[in-house]
Amino acid sequence: MNEPVKKKQKKRVLSGMRPTGLMHIGHLHGALETFWALQDDFDCFFFIADFHALTNWSPGMNVKESNQNMILDWLSTGLDPSRSTVFRQSDIVEIPTFHLILSMFTPVGWLLRNPTYKDQVEQLKIESPNYGFLGYPVLQSADVLLYQSHLVPIGRDQAPHLNLTIDLAQSMTNKFGDLFPVPDYMHSDTPTVPGSDNRKMSKSYGNAIYIKDTEKKTEKIIKGYYTDPLKPYMGDPGHPDDCPVFYLNKIYIKDKDRIQKIRETCESGERGCGECKKELATACNDYLRPIREKRAEFEKHPEEVEKILKDGAAKASAVAKKTLAKTMKAVGIR
Amino acid sequence: MNEPVKKKQKKRVLSGMRPTGLMHIGHLHGALETFWALQDDFDCFFFIADFHALTNWSPGMNVKESNQNMILDWLSTGLDPSRSTVFRQSDIVEIPTFHLILSMFTPVGWLLRNPTYKDQVEQLKIESPNYGFLGYPVLQSADVLLYQSHLVPIGRDQAPHLNLTIDLAQSMTNKFGDLFPVPDYMHSDTPTVPGSDNRKMSKSYGNAIYIKDTEKKTEKIIKGYYTDPLKPYMGDPGHPDDCPVFYLNKIYIKDKDRIQKIRETCESGERGCGECKKELATACNDYLRPIREKRAEFEKHPEEVEKILKDGAAKASAVAKKTLAKTMKAVGIR
Repeated sequence: MNEPVKKKQKKRVLSGMRPTGLMHIGHLHGALETFWALQDDFDCFFFIADFHALTNWSPGMNVKESNQNMILDWLSTGLDPSRSTVFRQSDIVEIPTFHLILSMFTPVGWLLRNPTYKDQVEQLKIESPNYGFLGYPVLQSADVLLYQSHLVPIGRDQAPHLNLTIDLAQSMTNKFGDLFPVPDYMHSDTPTVPGSDNRKMSKSYGNAIYIKDTEKKTEKIIKGYYTDPLKPYMGDPGHPDDCPVFYLNKIYIKDKDRIQKIRETCESGERGCGECKKELATACNDYLRPIREKRAEFEKHPEEVEKILKDGAAKASAVAKKTLAKTMKAVGIR
Repeated sequence: MNEPVKKKQKKRVLSGMRPTGLMHIGHLHGALETFWALQDDFDCFFFIADFHALTNWSPGMNVKESNQNMILDWLSTGLDPSRSTVFRQSDIVEIPTFHLILSMFTPVGWLLRNPTYKDQVEQLKIESPNYGFLGYPVLQSADVLLYQSHLVPIGRDQAPHLNLTIDLAQSMTNKFGDLFPVPDYMHSDTPTVPGSDNRKMSKSYGNAIYIKDTEKKTEKIIKGYYTDPLKPYMGDPGHPDDCPVFYLNKIYIKDKDRIQKIRETCESGERGCGECKKELATACNDYLRPIREKRAEFEKHPEEVEKILKDGAAKASAVAKKTLAKTMKAVGIR
């Protein structure tokens, strides 16, 4: 007799991103490509964390527009809604309720002692942090636990937040039994892509190449890129491993021999930086061209994009409803 | 020509109560009768604050059952759903979302310095207060502002909480313009009803006469009431103004002459305490009889009670939806 073959259920991975506006190639080669690779092996839930964007609200903030830009960037760079669940946090009506309930079970001391909170208040020079800012990890926990997630990909600096989620999940499980899995993290240390001034590429530094940029604009930014200061003139020997243009060429030029050739001619001094930049501009634009075309296509059809988000929200909500109902029953309110 | 007569719109009064179980005559003559009197002059929203009950969750807490008991007590003692909007907080899907948004605009310092918070942590010996406990005034603010309330009846000890709501409303109005009225409080200092041990009547002291109690049980409790310790025997002169039984007789016996007569015969010593208690038991049961009958009637028809709550929720939700939509637009998320 044949035994029925059990189909192994894929583990659920959850990841959200705060909508901060247009995404650049730092995001693309940093986080996004790592995320999209997870779609092969996991049941992925990716969401736009738009409520989280409000934790540092400032006048003129347009979260709605940032959401639009982010989803266009996601869809054009490899997020596949036929394999993954993609949604907007604020479309899930269950999330604020679940967050409110979790808030009743999260010791405020955990939050006040959270090193990320203390660091951010100092670094961002926040004079008067808001209640919601303090509670960032509670909302993050709600995101993770509501969808029955098993794994959360994080950079090493986010460990304190996720540890709080794990502790909260454990303490809820001790009190109420099986409401959701106690999640675990998967480290996904992503490369830091250098911007035009050789600092980490970042919107706030004004040193970024955006996915949405035109080819001409990309060329112009690359022309202005920082290069090895010890090689001011053609003929001077260069140090490619310290050069952001070489770093990017390694991403975009897939031909290993060509990269080796560039390295050698840079080190010998034969090659000038202008030549490298020209080659990078071509390779980068070649790489981004299909992405940009896809993005423009989606941009022309906002109703299609909206449908993708609504379908994703419906899938996420179906899971959310069950978790919330179980939780409300467990705490005695239903 | 006739000018159209403008109908003056009634101001909206909002009041909520945490469901703590069965209500006693301390609640009835303290808060409830004061509340129900407001129905004549105001557009009243009364709600069961069941999410608030979770701020001090303990194992075995049955919020659902407490909700049931509270609404039965309310309906039997004079809450009139044909004039007022009565609902359960957790039925309003907009409230947690509105609360989440307000949390992003409430300085956590306001909450940490809130004297009620500090007092309660000390008094209730809370070892590890939860995030939601700290945020009690944020949820309370959400309750007040979501329904466009003008006035909130409070006892004097609740002023710090409501002041926070007023400050938050003012600061949101400065940022975003007209989302909701800046509310005001109406002082409603309610009498403190003495329990059987002459302390304030309270569930936790075990000294209460419950609305739901039988007449026999009521009689028994009254028989055990504390009376003037300087009048151990009939014949001793009494001090009615220090006697809880006299206090209650003044509530239940409407005949002023009779009260005067009791006072005089107590003071002279002619009258014994047993006589007073018997008279109180009769008057109290007479007063509560129609209330208890109405309560029993509602208890037999839970579907009717549920319909009242659902209708109230629909009315409250209609207001809530508008406030939430305006607010989400103002903060840039929609």
